[in-house]
Amino acid sequence: MGKRGILITLEGIDGSGKSTHVRLLSEALRERGIPVVSTFEPGDTPLGAELRRILLRGDFSIAEQAELLLYMADRVQHVQEVILPALNKGVIVVCERYVDSTLVYQGYGRGVDKGFIEFLNEWVVDGCIPDLTIVLTLPVDLAFERMKSRDRDRMEQNDMAFFQRLKDGYDELLKKDNRNVVLVDATRKKQIVHMDVLKVVLSYLRKVGFIEG
Amino acid sequence: MGKRGILITLEGIDGSGKSTHVRLLSEALRERGIPVVSTFEPGDTPLGAELRRILLRGDFSIAEQAELLLYMADRVQHVQEVILPALNKGVIVVCERYVDSTLVYQGYGRGVDKGFIEFLNEWVVDGCIPDLTIVLTLPVDLAFERMKSRDRDRMEQNDMAFFQRLKDGYDELLKKDNRNVVLVDATRKKQIVHMDVLKVVLSYLRKVGFIEG
Repeated sequence: MGKRGILITLEGIDGSGKSTHVRLLSEALRERGIPVVSTFEPGDTPLGAELRRILLRGDFSIAEQAELLLYMADRVQHVQEVILPALNKGVIVVCERYVDSTLVYQGYGRGVDKGFIEFLNEWVVDGCIPDLTIVLTLPVDLAFERMKSRDRDRMEQNDMAFFQRLKDGYDELLKKDNRNVVLVDATRKKQIVHMDVLKVVLSYLRKVGFIEG
Repeated sequence: MGKRGILITLEGIDGSGKSTHVRLLSEALRERGIPVVSTFEPGDTPLGAELRRILLRGDFSIAEQAELLLYMADRVQHVQEVILPALNKGVIVVCERYVDSTLVYQGYGRGVDKGFIEFLNEWVVDGCIPDLTIVLTLPVDLAFERMKSRDRDRMEQNDMAFFQRLKDGYDELLKKDNRNVVLVDATRKKQIVHMDVLKVVLSYLRKVGFIEG
């Protein structure tokens, strides 16, 4: 077996540009000859796609605890079917949303017990914790404005106070000493944000010896 | 609030006659003027029906841990949407499969950590444990023969050794001192088994003062 890959997660509240920056980062790494698998949660496995469809439907009730368990089911399938196999091949996995999204949205946002979420997260990822997490930060009112201009789905129909709790949750991640978390200011132009994200990632890859330079 | 209802679960390996006896028991109680809600797992809520459909599909991979979490998501929704509201109205809930099915099928059957399953079960039922559990028992080879004569779906495509582990799991329930579990021999004619089930239930309802006599 060669060297193990690197798991990089992009996190942030809705409207912070995660999808865009996962795409730009993955492209930039590939251009440098670095093998990348880009992926997302929830929904990037056949099972996950079904669960995502259920989570986004608004035509029946889903208890908060059931919602949490569905996100966890999506994650365990994702880890086993996509993330772990890629890491075992030695590639870089860039993932939009992961363990922190659940802690922040279900824990800080909806008030589900955070200790329980962390316990479940640990069980479902089975040692596969992010090597590097980039949180795209945005003032709450700006995120809210950005979301208003989009079509909203069930996941994003939330009020300002909810957004504030999410932001607080992401800020708390910085205090975890077993995690490598970097905040990137996402209020700036897309290309500027991208260059920052790329710089953080390349610097990390050099530090751990994944690339030279 | 009046008196709380009673939760009765029917358990047993595939082919033991759970659906039939849930129906016969519910009818017999209703004929005696006792209010009953009869229900089942997985699938007896709108969310649950979607999850059941996913669990029965054979066209994509579902990791064992994901399967466990989907059953738990079904259960938490079921408890909150069906079981607890019925119990709070003071009625009797007769449920086909519940916490013990997950412990037996995923734990004993598939080898998922039993302590973890019990921990999750406790969280999802939120105090709503069965007042009485009837396990319909059947020798493994007989259950297997009964299943062979039915259309089999994903849940029931299992071999004899798997059936044996399920049976062992159900037998273990008897040793739990915080649970009220009665075995009923399901090898006999349907009406005889029904009379036994009904006797056990009526005797329990009298003992706890739910009915007179």
